[in-house]
Amino acid sequence: MIPYSRMDRSQLQQELDETRRAYDACKARGLKLNMARGRPAKAQLDLVSDILTVLTDGDDCIVDGVDARNYGVLEGLPCAREYWSDVLGCKPEQTFMGGASSLTLMYDLISKAYTHGLPGSERPWGKEETVKFLCPSPGYDRHFRITESFGAELITVPMTENGPDMDLVEQLVKDPQVKGIWCVPKYSNPDGVIYSEETVMRLARLQPAAPDFAIMWDNAYCVHEFDGEYVPFPDIISLCAEAGRPDMVWEFASTSKITLPGAGISVMASSEGNIRYMSKLMAVQLISYDKVNQLRHVRYLKDKAHTLQIMQRHATVMAPKFRMVLDMLQKHIAPLQIAGWNSPKGGYFVSLNAMPGTAKRVLALCAQAGVVMTDAGATYPYGIDPNDSNIRIAPSLPPVEELEQAMEVLCVCLKLAALEKLLDT
Amino acid sequence: MIPYSRMDRSQLQQELDETRRAYDACKARGLKLNMARGRPAKAQLDLVSDILTVLTDGDDCIVDGVDARNYGVLEGLPCAREYWSDVLGCKPEQTFMGGASSLTLMYDLISKAYTHGLPGSERPWGKEETVKFLCPSPGYDRHFRITESFGAELITVPMTENGPDMDLVEQLVKDPQVKGIWCVPKYSNPDGVIYSEETVMRLARLQPAAPDFAIMWDNAYCVHEFDGEYVPFPDIISLCAEAGRPDMVWEFASTSKITLPGAGISVMASSEGNIRYMSKLMAVQLISYDKVNQLRHVRYLKDKAHTLQIMQRHATVMAPKFRMVLDMLQKHIAPLQIAGWNSPKGGYFVSLNAMPGTAKRVLALCAQAGVVMTDAGATYPYGIDPNDSNIRIAPSLPPVEELEQAMEVLCVCLKLAALEKLLDT
Repeated sequence: MIPYSRMDRSQLQQELDETRRAYDACKARGLKLNMARGRPAKAQLDLVSDILTVLTDGDDCIVDGVDARNYGVLEGLPCAREYWSDVLGCKPEQTFMGGASSLTLMYDLISKAYTHGLPGSERPWGKEETVKFLCPSPGYDRHFRITESFGAELITVPMTENGPDMDLVEQLVKDPQVKGIWCVPKYSNPDGVIYSEETVMRLARLQPAAPDFAIMWDNAYCVHEFDGEYVPFPDIISLCAEAGRPDMVWEFASTSKITLPGAGISVMASSEGNIRYMSKLMAVQLISYDKVNQLRHVRYLKDKAHTLQIMQRHATVMAPKFRMVLDMLQKHIAPLQIAGWNSPKGGYFVSLNAMPGTAKRVLALCAQAGVVMTDAGATYPYGIDPNDSNIRIAPSLPPVEELEQAMEVLCVCLKLAALEKLLDT
Repeated sequence: MIPYSRMDRSQLQQELDETRRAYDACKARGLKLNMARGRPAKAQLDLVSDILTVLTDGDDCIVDGVDARNYGVLEGLPCAREYWSDVLGCKPEQTFMGGASSLTLMYDLISKAYTHGLPGSERPWGKEETVKFLCPSPGYDRHFRITESFGAELITVPMTENGPDMDLVEQLVKDPQVKGIWCVPKYSNPDGVIYSEETVMRLARLQPAAPDFAIMWDNAYCVHEFDGEYVPFPDIISLCAEAGRPDMVWEFASTSKITLPGAGISVMASSEGNIRYMSKLMAVQLISYDKVNQLRHVRYLKDKAHTLQIMQRHATVMAPKFRMVLDMLQKHIAPLQIAGWNSPKGGYFVSLNAMPGTAKRVLALCAQAGVVMTDAGATYPYGIDPNDSNIRIAPSLPPVEELEQAMEVLCVCLKLAALEKLLDT
């Protein structure tokens, strides 16, 4: 195999013919495989389903004098707040317990910023003429869509191997219309980047013109290593406080990929002032999120150390899948020099950059061959990748043998789309 | 005992002296009792805590080909939607499953009306100059507070024994700024009124000027009889459709007072068009509410018939408490003719109307004697009862013996405040 760039036209034509035959063979297999979303596999769910039996009778539900079964305790059970403070490195008073979805907490925060404003807001964001939001890209489509759904103008900030391009971020926040930034600081979605110490410090020391600028710190993969040792992370809340802007950051996390995605617990963490402010607004909206499930999780996960042990069990399922993806790319694509990709040690994705101008075509080809992937462009604001290049691979759901088939298809499609492009057919 | 109105001044003075002594004796007991909120008692929670063990391993969580443990199925498990359609009398496609709190679903609906509008809205409510909302009163403080928190102007509509004063409602909805009405159609909070057939029909046939007028139909006590037979209720969604405004009503219910208040499931029901509209907005906010808990509830509650059996078990705990409240009022207050009250057969409250101008004083006296009640005024918009008369008694939480003590205190305080008022001391 030689790089396509070194092939002449007739060699490319021959390669195209062969690849078309290979693609037709793929289609003939009648596959139905899904690598679209970062869903844990059934094997992972089975690993943690003993959580279903940690609370078996009424008295199990009484903790620190509180009956978790009854109404009350808006901010969540104290033991659950302590659990998350242990995991995140913040204080229990800096946490607010959510339901099964941290996305809902993020949405609620942005929604309330629009209707009521955040601490420091001169007016609710809904009363501003223009609200702009920074979107490090490639990034998480659901983040971008939250701010888009409220009419914010999304500004793409390129991701680097150390996190968002901070020179650009520091420039952009001088605009008072820029109200916040979406961040996934550890194993970023989809690049798998861990923000460098310098990036984190520069974020904590940002001097945005907007007094209510919000760093949306989605620590979704805070304990989600599948390869190698646990990588510690700094407490962003302390760092912002030390830098003199204690209210600038809102952190989020959940057990969706620790216990059960459809039945986990989530947390929002921020300065005590911010949590008090949000609690007051949240008190209008609910009595409390599900406290029995909070207690079930605390009893099951115990603390950070024990949670990391559980994550090692997940790693035994996850690691072979990522290895399969990377091995297939290395074997079938690397020699051709038509795409690049990262090799993450945690998180849920492999971020693949196909030959510019081919990502949509690759995924359309995949879909026709029965392999569903995240939509091309999804990792960019408004679903538009200016280079039509980035493809998010989510290898967690299929078993390894299915994944191998799916990756075979993907590799054939990457080649086919590149050849079509090079030959302008 | 003779009515206070027939006592002369010296008799009243003598009664005041005696009542003050009785009150001091109450205070001396050092009670600490709570009748503030409609919280189920521990005995009720214990009755239903076998719900904790209906799902004990991973395979229990797979239903109709869906793994409830994993992501997905935004609108909720089909079996959960069928369960609620059975209870509410609507279609499964007309339901959307929420988390532990129906209040959150109501808040979300109003919040989205403000930021995005409802089907039929000319613009989001947040862009309207004025939004007015009808509040049948006495009513539920948390309802009123939701609309208040978004800046709506709350308009009091008097409650009658048949529901809201419909003559007035029909007049008020001619104003296009009037965007909706809060309703608790069965065992209304706090009056325990079941809306009459005529009231329900007139609501369904409303012709509001606002194209996006919303009947907020909080069916919180739909199966919550504690005295006598289950009372059937009509499907408001069909009635609105038959009357030509299928999108006018949004119904809400939950298992908060069927299973566990701190860990139940909730539902929103409306026209299929409305549910589609909301699902599209909710898709930005979450992947799904807790589906394992949905399945746990469906397996435990089974269907409407079985749910009604469970409600009879709750009734065995609830009925003696309501009897105690009503007996105490009948014995100590009725002969004095200083207050009136309802005698509900379901729901969670006794609505007491003290001598006008004394409710705040009564509750302050109660608090000083260690008995906490819902704040005076709470049952009216902005927390202001124009007559300073309505008191909401929530007898469910304390055991009967404590309740008797609390009611003794309340009766003494009702007398004391009335006497102070009559003697203008």
